[in-house]
Amino acid sequence: MRLPLLVAVCCTVWAFAVRPHCAEAKARHFKWEVSNMFWSPDCEEKVLIGINGQFPGPTIRARAGDTIHVELKNALHTEGVVIHWHGIRQIGTPWADGTAAISQCAINPEETFTYRFVVDKPGTYFYHGHYGMQRAAGLYGSLIVDVAEGEEEPFKYDGELNLLLSDWYHESIHTQMVSLSSKPFRWIGEPQSLLINGRGQFNCSLAAAHTQGAKQCGAVNRQCAPVVLPVQPNKTYRLRVASTTSLASLNLAVGNHKLTVVEADGNYVDPFVVDDIDIYSGDSYSVLLTTNQDPSSNYWVSVGVRGRQPKTPPALAVLNYRPNRASKLPSLAPPVTPAWNDYAHSKNFTYRIRARAGTPPPPATADRRIELLNTQNKMDGHIKWSINNVSMVLPATPYLGSLKLGLKSTLTAARPAETFSRAYDVTRPPANPNTTTGDNVYVLRHNTTVDVVLQNANALARDVSEVHPWHLHGHDFWVLGYGDGAYRGDAADVARLNLRDPPLRNTAVIFPYGWTVLRFVADNPGVWAFHCHIEPHLHMGMGVIFAEAVDRVGKVPKEAVSCGATANALMAGDHL
Amino acid sequence: MRLPLLVAVCCTVWAFAVRPHCAEAKARHFKWEVSNMFWSPDCEEKVLIGINGQFPGPTIRARAGDTIHVELKNALHTEGVVIHWHGIRQIGTPWADGTAAISQCAINPEETFTYRFVVDKPGTYFYHGHYGMQRAAGLYGSLIVDVAEGEEEPFKYDGELNLLLSDWYHESIHTQMVSLSSKPFRWIGEPQSLLINGRGQFNCSLAAAHTQGAKQCGAVNRQCAPVVLPVQPNKTYRLRVASTTSLASLNLAVGNHKLTVVEADGNYVDPFVVDDIDIYSGDSYSVLLTTNQDPSSNYWVSVGVRGRQPKTPPALAVLNYRPNRASKLPSLAPPVTPAWNDYAHSKNFTYRIRARAGTPPPPATADRRIELLNTQNKMDGHIKWSINNVSMVLPATPYLGSLKLGLKSTLTAARPAETFSRAYDVTRPPANPNTTTGDNVYVLRHNTTVDVVLQNANALARDVSEVHPWHLHGHDFWVLGYGDGAYRGDAADVARLNLRDPPLRNTAVIFPYGWTVLRFVADNPGVWAFHCHIEPHLHMGMGVIFAEAVDRVGKVPKEAVSCGATANALMAGDHL
Repeated sequence: MRLPLLVAVCCTVWAFAVRPHCAEAKARHFKWEVSNMFWSPDCEEKVLIGINGQFPGPTIRARAGDTIHVELKNALHTEGVVIHWHGIRQIGTPWADGTAAISQCAINPEETFTYRFVVDKPGTYFYHGHYGMQRAAGLYGSLIVDVAEGEEEPFKYDGELNLLLSDWYHESIHTQMVSLSSKPFRWIGEPQSLLINGRGQFNCSLAAAHTQGAKQCGAVNRQCAPVVLPVQPNKTYRLRVASTTSLASLNLAVGNHKLTVVEADGNYVDPFVVDDIDIYSGDSYSVLLTTNQDPSSNYWVSVGVRGRQPKTPPALAVLNYRPNRASKLPSLAPPVTPAWNDYAHSKNFTYRIRARAGTPPPPATADRRIELLNTQNKMDGHIKWSINNVSMVLPATPYLGSLKLGLKSTLTAARPAETFSRAYDVTRPPANPNTTTGDNVYVLRHNTTVDVVLQNANALARDVSEVHPWHLHGHDFWVLGYGDGAYRGDAADVARLNLRDPPLRNTAVIFPYGWTVLRFVADNPGVWAFHCHIEPHLHMGMGVIFAEAVDRVGKVPKEAVSCGATANALMAGDHL
Repeated sequence: MRLPLLVAVCCTVWAFAVRPHCAEAKARHFKWEVSNMFWSPDCEEKVLIGINGQFPGPTIRARAGDTIHVELKNALHTEGVVIHWHGIRQIGTPWADGTAAISQCAINPEETFTYRFVVDKPGTYFYHGHYGMQRAAGLYGSLIVDVAEGEEEPFKYDGELNLLLSDWYHESIHTQMVSLSSKPFRWIGEPQSLLINGRGQFNCSLAAAHTQGAKQCGAVNRQCAPVVLPVQPNKTYRLRVASTTSLASLNLAVGNHKLTVVEADGNYVDPFVVDDIDIYSGDSYSVLLTTNQDPSSNYWVSVGVRGRQPKTPPALAVLNYRPNRASKLPSLAPPVTPAWNDYAHSKNFTYRIRARAGTPPPPATADRRIELLNTQNKMDGHIKWSINNVSMVLPATPYLGSLKLGLKSTLTAARPAETFSRAYDVTRPPANPNTTTGDNVYVLRHNTTVDVVLQNANALARDVSEVHPWHLHGHDFWVLGYGDGAYRGDAADVARLNLRDPPLRNTAVIFPYGWTVLRFVADNPGVWAFHCHIEPHLHMGMGVIFAEAVDRVGKVPKEAVSCGATANALMAGDHL
């Protein structure tokens, strides 16, 4: 079953073979050059990865149904690069998903690769590097899709503000990757700063007057200047908020203002009102905010850390009620982020997210259930994250090409486990911490409905279980339910599942010691990553691969597979 | 004309198609994995590139005529890699020369590439990364070729000591590359340390007692422990010395000991005795040292900086006369490095290097003369080094494959200049500092004799002209002569050329404001880099390419050209 679009657009473009049926859909062309550059995201100068000399990268703005063409030149010196269009399902264009070693070969230095894909659905998205830990090096930007010409969003607002959230380490990603791969293991620690639209302030606070012991930021340069959000009083604004953090789970609040959640991950949700929202890495939301407070004052937007002991100070932006000066400091202190371990608060927020009326319901039953136990393990002295005791290692040759060409040698014969022992005690460190590495490729049949049970567990240290936001490429899924402890699949667990109005998303969290059940329809042939969106966790193996009806994938552009075993096969005369 | 080997070996292997004719030549197999790792070369921990967990990489030891097989796995996370076998001519195997974008595609992460080549000539060589500035990240090691079984060196010695010299920066090469490419330009400064066999001591001296203001090194870890060279009294040792520095020109002396120079770059030279030797990046020497000093003492081996104001302290090693303890500090102070700008001293040493009797003389005349003016220039605000006003930029697709396949689109049509204006004033900054970038490919006809005039000049700043050691791949050349000022090619200049006993080398220096004339025979089909061996200078464009009788190159292994335009052509059915 192909998911119907939530809002009927005047035309749909599923593949390049199918031409848009109406004049409104546009081709939007971008020419990008990715390079290392000096930048001071939090006023400390470091080297990061920028696009066209900008950080974050340029914002892509399009309308539903448009085709995006990004001609990407890799101007890094010795590193490959790819860009993933997070939340875009790439219907019919799996080779444009931008996952190195999965959907395409990394683009070599000095090479240009053109991403062409349709943004079929309005919403708040972003893009980012998906090779090594390049996302954490600053390779990201916003991708915003408006409703098609002549269509309307199902809610009203007067203006729009965009907040792309991230975290920032002073150590280079090269050192971070070596640390995480080292024996003995070296943890990279917490990020030095949180960034809003690529800007933060290290070692000082914009609101020091309200924060004990904090140093007031002095004059800072443009690259780390406070983010100012200009608003008019008594209007309603749509705040688009997305998180591309490497590690941090976040919470956002705006002093004295309520937030009405209306969109999650490019899908409309049943509106609900909150004081603050949790945002995990990979999430995006739209919230409506009405400027109904004392207009003589400005207000703080505060972004703080959840789920880990916060060693990173909050990021602040100024909600600037015009005509106040932007530099006028808010009279109120910034909102205080809920306690990092107040999971009741987090669950309360997450559980409130329901699909908006009109969202297609999930199929009533699934054809297959894949249960994925998330554990932290050891392998030969290295620390890994494992799924059903296999830690994902990506191959030299991307799956999409090698599976399409039937190069069996590129895959290990063993199929990964569909489930794990019911006897596994999720409340304790693994009794046998040893893990293996593997391909972790799950082969999915076309148009089958798949349930995924994500089971969290205790890490290697006692009494530690972390939040993991899992992100699925190529699809949205329905989040059927959450629970604490081990999922048994019994009547009580099944009773917790919501088949009536589960939200459609592309990222869903598992809470500590808890489980989450997702359902999706394998209706988009391709090879798709499904992984924890925390960059160091993915680096340490926390993911699986879904190889979905690869025989139905259309002709893969050669440029996408011009490396490794697929290049060899094609040079020997094989055909895609 | 193919160069005869200096010492007749029992068999020669020019290409894989030709089997060795005798039993003595061996295939030597190595399995290497290149990865980033933490290491403390000068007692400060940084991330470098190691091989099999070692730094420097493993020493290759072979006999003349042997075939080396290095199965190289790239275990870097997102960077390609290649390894160049410096001084090995790669007769018949140009695809094994290990120059990214020239002789082969960079090896992608997780991929394995096998280098197979014959070490046809005994001598002191080394290997190193040749992609971006990876050499400066520590990717190097020694390659020592003994005479063939049953043959003898033309000089006697009782033992052998190996010294691989390098310099070391604390800043990562990624930051260095961004700095050098930045606008405004950011110079990377002088290296923090000099290393001997990968070991140095930052911020302290092994011989502090003799050095005013220096701090004595305390206990240091194994990775940066002093290098100890154990010797017996009254014996003769062969010191093999090679320099793979990124920037520094070096001078080596051993307290109270004379040095007899016998080999340079894998070629025997007419022996001469000196107190110290200059070694430029890319050079290798063998010197004989007789342990004829007071045997109750140890002696310092000292390596200091030449040619630039030395901000990097000397590296020291201990010549340990057994049975003295290695830890017994020498009673004499370390030898003092000659003044950095005492070019008379440098020239005196360099000019004394003559070929040993029996070395083949150069052809009496050349078929072609290529004059290369070395200048520092500006391009769009970036600082570049240029040759005849073109700064080298390497293409996405390596030349060897694209020229072999005749993919003209990969080369600009313009041929680089063979000479430069006689009116150019080498004593002043360039009147017009603007440069362009280009391919700088010189096409050489098979078996022609080529003279190269390297002409140094003033840099951008007034009264600055630097030393540049130029290294030629795929050949040795005869160094016909050196001179000061502009080469005019007139009778006086020609009179300075030595056609009687010029040394054969693969690296030759141009002195400030001076010229150097080289001659070589284009008898080795392939595509060969010719460039300044100073890593930041090469990064800034200081090199040219010789495309030599590419139609005569044997079948290039597909693995070497499986990228870019060559991969596209081969996938479309073209044949190599």
